[in-house]
Amino acid sequence: MITLKGAAVSAKIKEQVEELLKGNTGRIPKLAIVRVGERPDDLSYERGALKKMAAFGLEAECFAFPEDITDQDFKKEFSQINESRDIDGILLLRPLPKQIREQDIERMIDPQKDLDGISPINIAKVFAGDDSGFAPCTAEAVVEVLKANEIPLTGKKVTLVGRSMVVGRPLSMLLLKENATVTICHTRTENLKENCRNGEILIAAAGRAKMLDASYVKEGAVVIDVGINVDENGKLCGDVDFDTLEGTASMATPVPGGVGAVTTAVLAKHLVLAACCRRDTV
Amino acid sequence: MITLKGAAVSAKIKEQVEELLKGNTGRIPKLAIVRVGERPDDLSYERGALKKMAAFGLEAECFAFPEDITDQDFKKEFSQINESRDIDGILLLRPLPKQIREQDIERMIDPQKDLDGISPINIAKVFAGDDSGFAPCTAEAVVEVLKANEIPLTGKKVTLVGRSMVVGRPLSMLLLKENATVTICHTRTENLKENCRNGEILIAAAGRAKMLDASYVKEGAVVIDVGINVDENGKLCGDVDFDTLEGTASMATPVPGGVGAVTTAVLAKHLVLAACCRRDTV
Repeated sequence: MITLKGAAVSAKIKEQVEELLKGNTGRIPKLAIVRVGERPDDLSYERGALKKMAAFGLEAECFAFPEDITDQDFKKEFSQINESRDIDGILLLRPLPKQIREQDIERMIDPQKDLDGISPINIAKVFAGDDSGFAPCTAEAVVEVLKANEIPLTGKKVTLVGRSMVVGRPLSMLLLKENATVTICHTRTENLKENCRNGEILIAAAGRAKMLDASYVKEGAVVIDVGINVDENGKLCGDVDFDTLEGTASMATPVPGGVGAVTTAVLAKHLVLAACCRRDTV
Repeated sequence: MITLKGAAVSAKIKEQVEELLKGNTGRIPKLAIVRVGERPDDLSYERGALKKMAAFGLEAECFAFPEDITDQDFKKEFSQINESRDIDGILLLRPLPKQIREQDIERMIDPQKDLDGISPINIAKVFAGDDSGFAPCTAEAVVEVLKANEIPLTGKKVTLVGRSMVVGRPLSMLLLKENATVTICHTRTENLKENCRNGEILIAAAGRAKMLDASYVKEGAVVIDVGINVDENGKLCGDVDFDTLEGTASMATPVPGGVGAVTTAVLAKHLVLAACCRRDTV
């Protein structure tokens, strides 16, 4: 079985970013990471994003707010970041605390700075197969892993486990754009195993530690694991029990070191695209 | 095999509409049908919609414009309809002629009047499983047919043929909201027959006359035909060769007399919901 490492895919995306930056005569594109509170998941993602931006030669600034910031105050702060001429793109760490009306922020964010595809305009574009907007980075990262490893998608049966707004739903649309035949499974699916074993490509994005083992995998299938969970020993693990796959899957992504590393590379690419686009139009 | 007639579903929706109207103390809800040119499809749909509004005791007015109206002139006219206090909901017949930038209109239309779910706000809501907006009427009509006939969806395998923005894509999300396991097939799908035969419910929305016959249908499956085509004899027909289904499908919708009749009933329901909603907030 071939292990599909995220680092190799990230390196390819870095080349694309460098190519895009070649024509860049202005200042370095700058990312704003907006965080409310100190959730460990957010802090970990923030560290990863900062590291990647630095590695790709891009700027980033964190805007952190106290967990009990009011809806009104947060919106004022967010507006300033959203309108700032210095900021080319925004990553908003979510979910936000309950007092903030997240839906308002989704509608406020400038679609051209909305690198993680949370605005209705970008969601509608993903839905329509229009790639002029930004898809959620994790969903796009999965497609990047498949493409970078030259895994054909046209006409292929892809089974997706998970229907979140961050991965499952947008990814189903991105895969449709690549002409895959997509099956979306979830917690209420009957015969999950049978559905999974039907997929030439199996994508796990359910958020449950090691819920899928080799018995869910078709012989020779490609397995992409989007899950980031902590196992019973406190160790990072995916939705797939990777160690069981040898002899069944033809290729699989590990966790850590798989899709996660590609997500921040996609974020960096989105940032550069946003910066180029702004300079074209401003 | 049971024939699932649209008229019975439409009658149930009419009851819901009457219930909603009971609390209505203001004027009768009014639909604006906006048409550019004289395409036979548009005229036929317009006639159906007008007839249904009259049958449901609702008002409707057609706003027809010449096929060569300029982008600018059309936008001016559309704005007036969009902002009119007399109009509770809008049905825009599409596609528009090429000189009109349809995407601009999708972004202009007031989401609360957008009865056929073409605005990014409503698309994003359908995508997220948020039913506070409006889904495209035809997609919702399919779910209404299934629900009115008490066909369970939770956990069931539904195969959908077609990935249009009007039916396939939004319908996949509506079915996901009903907890179905959804497979989306299309022109590039390999082994279409096998995929279709996998579905406990098979939904045809491909727009190709009689492309699916009984050999594509699992024994006992429910078949919903969204297609409206003209066959070799100039007769209206669906995407499914209905006459072949006896003995294979357990239930099926005919064309005409199936989903089509429900689509305009859903439009009427959306109109009344839009009117109620406006009066709550205006």
